[in-house]
Amino acid sequence: MNNNDELKMPAALMSKKGSRRDFLRNTALTALAGSAVSACSIGESGAQSVNASDADHSGGSMAPNPAPVSAAAAAEAMDKMHEAGIKSFPARTAGKGNQLLQPRLSNGVKVFELTAKKISWETAPGQTVEAWAYNDQIPGPQIRVREGDRVRVIIKNELTESTAIHFHGVELPNDQDGVPFITQPPIKSGQTYTYEFTAPNPGSHMYHSHHNSATQVGLGLLGAFIIEPKNPLPIEKADIDYVLVLNDGAHGYTFNGKSFPATEPIVAKKGQKVRIRFMNEGMMIHPMHLHGMHMTVIAKDGWAQPAPWKCDTLNVAPGERWDVIVNCNNPGTWAFHCHILPHAESDHGMFGMVTALIVK
Amino acid sequence: MNNNDELKMPAALMSKKGSRRDFLRNTALTALAGSAVSACSIGESGAQSVNASDADHSGGSMAPNPAPVSAAAAAEAMDKMHEAGIKSFPARTAGKGNQLLQPRLSNGVKVFELTAKKISWETAPGQTVEAWAYNDQIPGPQIRVREGDRVRVIIKNELTESTAIHFHGVELPNDQDGVPFITQPPIKSGQTYTYEFTAPNPGSHMYHSHHNSATQVGLGLLGAFIIEPKNPLPIEKADIDYVLVLNDGAHGYTFNGKSFPATEPIVAKKGQKVRIRFMNEGMMIHPMHLHGMHMTVIAKDGWAQPAPWKCDTLNVAPGERWDVIVNCNNPGTWAFHCHILPHAESDHGMFGMVTALIVK
Amino acid sequence: MNNNDELKMPAALMSKKGSRRDFLRNTALTALAGSAVSACSIGESGAQSVNASDADHSGGSMAPNPAPVSAAAAAEAMDKMHEAGIKSFPARTAGKGNQLLQPRLSNGVKVFELTAKKISWETAPGQTVEAWAYNDQIPGPQIRVREGDRVRVIIKNELTESTAIHFHGVELPNDQDGVPFITQPPIKSGQTYTYEFTAPNPGSHMYHSHHNSATQVGLGLLGAFIIEPKNPLPIEKADIDYVLVLNDGAHGYTFNGKSFPATEPIVAKKGQKVRIRFMNEGMMIHPMHLHGMHMTVIAKDGWAQPAPWKCDTLNVAPGERWDVIVNCNNPGTWAFHCHILPHAESDHGMFGMVTALIVK
Repeated sequence: MNNNDELKMPAALMSKKGSRRDFLRNTALTALAGSAVSACSIGESGAQSVNASDADHSGGSMAPNPAPVSAAAAAEAMDKMHEAGIKSFPARTAGKGNQLLQPRLSNGVKVFELTAKKISWETAPGQTVEAWAYNDQIPGPQIRVREGDRVRVIIKNELTESTAIHFHGVELPNDQDGVPFITQPPIKSGQTYTYEFTAPNPGSHMYHSHHNSATQVGLGLLGAFIIEPKNPLPIEKADIDYVLVLNDGAHGYTFNGKSFPATEPIVAKKGQKVRIRFMNEGMMIHPMHLHGMHMTVIAKDGWAQPAPWKCDTLNVAPGERWDVIVNCNNPGTWAFHCHILPHAESDHGMFGMVTALIVK
Repeated sequence: MNNNDELKMPAALMSKKGSRRDFLRNTALTALAGSAVSACSIGESGAQSVNASDADHSGGSMAPNPAPVSAAAAAEAMDKMHEAGIKSFPARTAGKGNQLLQPRLSNGVKVFELTAKKISWETAPGQTVEAWAYNDQIPGPQIRVREGDRVRVIIKNELTESTAIHFHGVELPNDQDGVPFITQPPIKSGQTYTYEFTAPNPGSHMYHSHHNSATQVGLGLLGAFIIEPKNPLPIEKADIDYVLVLNDGAHGYTFNGKSFPATEPIVAKKGQKVRIRFMNEGMMIHPMHLHGMHMTVIAKDGWAQPAPWKCDTLNVAPGERWDVIVNCNNPGTWAFHCHILPHAESDHGMFGMVTALIVK
Repeated sequence: MNNNDELKMPAALMSKKGSRRDFLRNTALTALAGSAVSACSIGESGAQSVNASDADHSGGSMAPNPAPVSAAAAAEAMDKMHEAGIKSFPARTAGKGNQLLQPRLSNGVKVFELTAKKISWETAPGQTVEAWAYNDQIPGPQIRVREGDRVRVIIKNELTESTAIHFHGVELPNDQDGVPFITQPPIKSGQTYTYEFTAPNPGSHMYHSHHNSATQVGLGLLGAFIIEPKNPLPIEKADIDYVLVLNDGAHGYTFNGKSFPATEPIVAKKGQKVRIRFMNEGMMIHPMHLHGMHMTVIAKDGWAQPAPWKCDTLNVAPGERWDVIVNCNNPGTWAFHCHILPHAESDHGMFGMVTALIVK
């Protein structure tokens, strides 16, 4: 297949050594040792609050200030933590979600095989959570087909409870809709089930569990399902085609299954056009704010908007998909984050729903 | 009057016998009796968790798993509960809201009479809550007039506190706006008050209390107020005209005052056009997701959008009204629900903001 | 400079004597003294619940009812509290935010000087909170420049921790973007820092802290940054140009830093056009509902919408700016509030996100 040629993922920038946790501890200790108070006791409490930060990102709560530190030393320690977080970006973690899944061809049918099972998932350095995943990744593998393709999705259920797949936004025959007891029986533990259909309405869609879904989707049974159009509109041509899945469930505030500083930057050259496909698989709105450049909104739920419109902050609600084009005409490293600030920064620094668009 | 001819409500499908609660208890017991563990003790705890589910839908919390059940038996019991909920849809409950209120004519004026009082309201089988209602129903009776009609609304206050009616979205003379101490005195307990005006801007509007409103609207003092246009646009012609009031207050997550499986399906024939008028009377957004077909958005707050646009997930915020057209070209029973998943499903099955669009 | 000629703030209407608290206490006592129960004990408990209301507006919780009051007396006392709140509007408080900041000219550069420091801020009569402010006001002073102006913003940090300014929505060179450790070092306590740039894309933008921002913006380090276009569109011409900053953080639910009844009404003459620039600096959506007239939406984040569209309830998400035009053709005092009702009214009366548009 050659319909993924347009997909140019930014190069991975994950060559740094040492974890953010180590870096944070070292810098915090150094900072505090240089202050006018006892390096020993304060260094320890500083390190503790750094650890608390690592463990407590998603709540946005603040660790109690170590009591006897001067304001200047506390401010200095805070800055060091903020700096360490940013300098460690993009931080290395185990596992990468949303990887393009190559189908095998069987008599002209594109066959995608998925296995649902329980895994451990590292959302940020040292933060490992229980996850329910398709093919051991969160989000599940990215599925891309072309309008009119014959598609088969085979799902093996290795969970301990039943499941089912709903192709969210895809206008399928009713018996492929994936809602247990309405359109099919549940897929029980140990069973394998096959969906098959001809790819209909093109656009940015999703696939996810529709059984015990608040739990199953919250734990990671979700992924992007993109149907590329036979006849793309001129406005949707882009140099880079990037899927950004938002989530806010059991794994904290994540972009493509990772929290800052383990999120992935989008890297473009000056003059390139980036298409971003926002997909909200969470329970909350996330108004996505891009610094330095605006976004031109071209599609909602896979359907072209009647006229493109511009913004720098796009409110993405649960279940929605929005496609935007960014004309990368402003060089630099641009923060790109949810503008509900407690989803993006605590007094320990940026976390959660933060990444960057890097224009070279 | 003949301006309601276009209103074709789906046929009530409420002929089933026995309640969901009975069905759930029986099926859960049966399922558990067939498992490899003690039918007696587990059957009882299974039944308890079903009851807990019935009482605790809106929180989305999970009842503790009965300890000694095998994973397979627990999964089987979960599936049975999910199936029972769906099979009982649409479940019979006492009371039906949003019923069309026929006015009486008095010298050319359409007169609507409302009484506000405290009632008991069954949101789902066996779930009865305190409600404050217009004419004993939640939402209050649906009022439909035509642009230019002379309208009189007489409200009798049988509550124990004052109230007032605001016609949300209707551009009235200031003294008919219904805000106590700004445009009128409060309507005290026992008093009757009359609003009278000529129906101005057409569209999907609402009426609700504007006194102690967080409490009074939360408890049910709300309804649809629709002004049909003298000259409808071609795009707004539909075979079925359906009002869907969303709420999330004291009565849990409801569509037209009911929680799944007591919600009402929308039933259409293949080829028909359904107009859905979403109205959010709650405190939270509800991104409404339709399976199998898209929605064409034609109006916001009663005002035509400059160009219709398509989506499958429409984010409806408190106070907003959105009108959409669904071209029912895909036969089947299609789930139709809020995509904040904890508003729609727990481990005990679907509940709250779930209904179906049935295309025959 | 003459580019602020179009800015006509509504006349301050703050000449009343006595605080709302006094008024509430007096009216509540009077009301209760006239009821059929003991004036002494009930008057005291009535006064207590009024005080509780003053202290507890933002939570929307209800004070316990004074036990032995009859329903009629309780309803009467509630009405008196509601009336007192409305009659005291607009209530006098210390401090006014969002005041237009006149720049000094230096070799053709418009120079704006800001000082960030901790202050006390009165959000409603008697409700004083800790705030972190630019130039002692919340929101910070309103900055208005014209597209193409050379602009210098000098910030002095008198806080006890570092800070930085991000010009939200303004497409600046990367080194002026205000994100510590990405585009600049943090501005440490005691330091002064200078931003300088040529005003690019026109529209309704914001400036706010981008360091420890959940805390710093939540406490008040925010303001409006408006770039007037060289060539305004006909539709954006207005008689009154009003900035309305929404917030919901540590200071409760506020419009321009104040809670009802201390919010500021917008006052227009019949036939005038009012442009309202909504800016959400909070953490929650706020669907803004105007009574009596609709709003025509003309811009999103400073960018013209491809076609204006109408509504009466506009959902404003964190970080978003929406510009609307109201054609003031309906005389009267019109409630104008967030339609998440617990952000606007409790059983003690309106509070928080409520103001009025007065058309004379």
